[in-house]
Amino acid sequence: MPDIARYEQEGGILSNVVASGNIVITAGAVGDDLSLDVKGQTRETLAYVDKMLALAGTDKSKILFVTIWLPDIRMRDTMNEVWLEWVDPANLPARACVEARLANIDYKVEMQIIAAR
Amino acid sequence: MPDIARYEQEGGILSNVVASGNIVITAGAVGDDLSLDVKGQTRETLAYVDKMLALAGTDKSKILFVTIWLPDIRMRDTMNEVWLEWVDPANLPARACVEARLANIDYKVEMQIIAAR
Amino acid sequence: MPDIARYEQEGGILSNVVASGNIVITAGAVGDDLSLDVKGQTRETLAYVDKMLALAGTDKSKILFVTIWLPDIRMRDTMNEVWLEWVDPANLPARACVEARLANIDYKVEMQIIAAR
Repeated sequence: MPDIARYEQEGGILSNVVASGNIVITAGAVGDDLSLDVKGQTRETLAYVDKMLALAGTDKSKILFVTIWLPDIRMRDTMNEVWLEWVDPANLPARACVEARLANIDYKVEMQIIAAR
Repeated sequence: MPDIARYEQEGGILSNVVASGNIVITAGAVGDDLSLDVKGQTRETLAYVDKMLALAGTDKSKILFVTIWLPDIRMRDTMNEVWLEWVDPANLPARACVEARLANIDYKVEMQIIAAR
Repeated sequence: MPDIARYEQEGGILSNVVASGNIVITAGAVGDDLSLDVKGQTRETLAYVDKMLALAGTDKSKILFVTIWLPDIRMRDTMNEVWLEWVDPANLPARACVEARLANIDYKVEMQIIAAR
């Protein structure tokens, strides 16, 4: 069994990022400022993803897969504008984007990452 | 290619848990007694998760990630009460919890696990 | 860090399949002909999954996990009829199937795969 590293165990509920062997998995990530629109929240979410990946010793160039949940799937193109500014064009992850109501009614996007390291 | 072990291949549709190398993945797990409320179904679901992980030679201390689907996201805090009684506080997994309608209208929670072994 | 291979990087947004070490992950896969019903779109989606797995040097006998999203969960039994014609009965993957609105209102099914190779 490979060692498991757990980062930011918060509130006794979950770890924000977990690594085992070559695999890094984040919790569902959201933005901080819930007054922001989809673009603003996507920027904050992706900045937070960068931070989580760094904690586990990896970065966005090594992402394998991203699940994206939007409470309103019609916001996908808007979210994608920020995604395209952020994603490493030489190392595009696989991705799935579906609609789902989220834990807080003010969350406009949630993302979850599987990366290599 | 690592060996792949498949447990509880049921109804010719799916295996309830699959292991490959150091990685164990369960199918979406639900409770048995669909007359139970969210708390009761969460308890049954987590007991079933324990059983599936044991079949594949691992346990809840080695969970990396849990996807939780609730047909009513407002039940998240209620589900979390049972989660907190169950989860290993020294080994918290990453987690995402979103709303989704489930295969049976009486399912009040469904969980899916990625673990190390 | 294992090498990461990325296939079909499309539109600068995502790769359709990514492999790292022994793990292969596809993007959310859908059918081409959106005029088809659930069965027809499921057939096209699974044919596309076969193609993506082949690109990454694996096949359906080595699938570990499939996430299935249906915009109408009542279509699960109908989707399963095509699934049963396709899936390798000796190597059943773990699976979760939930309802979610998808990126295009005409998508009747979306599937995402984690496989070994």
